[in-house]
Amino acid sequence: MYEGPVQDLIDELGKLPGIGPKGAQRIAFHLLTADRAQIVRLQDALQRIRDGVQFCVVCGTVAEHEKCRICSDSRRDRTMICVVEEPKDVQAVERTREFKGVYHVLGGALDPLSGVGPDQLRIRELLARIGGQVPAGDDSVEVTEVIIATDPNTEGEATATYLVRMLRGFPGLSVTRLASGLPMGGDLEFADELTLGRALSGRRAL
Amino acid sequence: MYEGPVQDLIDELGKLPGIGPKGAQRIAFHLLTADRAQIVRLQDALQRIRDGVQFCVVCGTVAEHEKCRICSDSRRDRTMICVVEEPKDVQAVERTREFKGVYHVLGGALDPLSGVGPDQLRIRELLARIGGQVPAGDDSVEVTEVIIATDPNTEGEATATYLVRMLRGFPGLSVTRLASGLPMGGDLEFADELTLGRALSGRRAL
Repeated sequence: MYEGPVQDLIDELGKLPGIGPKGAQRIAFHLLTADRAQIVRLQDALQRIRDGVQFCVVCGTVAEHEKCRICSDSRRDRTMICVVEEPKDVQAVERTREFKGVYHVLGGALDPLSGVGPDQLRIRELLARIGGQVPAGDDSVEVTEVIIATDPNTEGEATATYLVRMLRGFPGLSVTRLASGLPMGGDLEFADELTLGRALSGRRAL
Repeated sequence: MYEGPVQDLIDELGKLPGIGPKGAQRIAFHLLTADRAQIVRLQDALQRIRDGVQFCVVCGTVAEHEKCRICSDSRRDRTMICVVEEPKDVQAVERTREFKGVYHVLGGALDPLSGVGPDQLRIRELLARIGGQVPAGDDSVEVTEVIIATDPNTEGEATATYLVRMLRGFPGLSVTRLASGLPMGGDLEFADELTLGRALSGRRAL
């Protein structure tokens, strides 16, 4: 245990996800000898997070203004909505450069044991969007496809199943789910049974 | 890339040692949904580091007051000084509960390529301490043993060699070095040649 402010900083850093006691110590001693300006920038960044981050009124991802960059972009195809759990999933899909539609961030996945039911997620907002009720300032465009891109785990699958049921009420709307299967560059031998099973049942004609 | 303050925080966190882009993103999103009080505590801890951390006037480790807890403790044996590179090395030796003497923190190791020479380390202060010149408020006690506990790497070994030469000028002073050898719980088969070589040359009679 160190004395005074150094230990306080180690304790606070150690509470952050992915930082253990050794890592916290390393960062604290780094900051002790670091440029003051670096500490100031980190403090400022924390302050701005504390002041509150804006979320896009349309899709719910983190945004600098009222609407995020994607929802403000007139070149994006508003007839396709990709539904994801978190803002970081938006970034993951964007990195593929394959998707030209828009997003809808649920803010998590259904997990009744942790108290996350449909009302805790932005499902009502999704249904309103598809139903043509768009927030002021956004163009009303008919949505023709919803791609459900929740995580391929228990909570994500449950959320997908729930959404499919809710979206049945929209005639003519095509609802799809990201394919599950073997990861590219992977090895069939080392694939788990569940993934290999999904790859088999989802096999495609060549 | 996220928009606005979230990306700024990810950028700043990513500059810290041991935090990669994924880890920075994880921490940023954690703080986004975290208790405000947690962010405040982290900011405060950073502020106190920025305001300056005190170093013990005697040994040079981080301290809450003018003298650190160890140097203020009258039960510690002031005739033995353990010389280490960094404050975290003081904690490492303390954890063994084997050492009842006091410490001297050099503030690094000799590394001419990075511009660290003897003048950049607290070597002059060490020689003054052994020579009986103690900072005001500390008792003058004759030092009988200096244990050199610099890291067992190139810089640490060079520093140890340099210190041994400087300490030859004190008659009756015993200068020792931490033993090098196989780590406890280790496996002889997997020891590197250098460590095994040291273990051999440092073998002890049973």
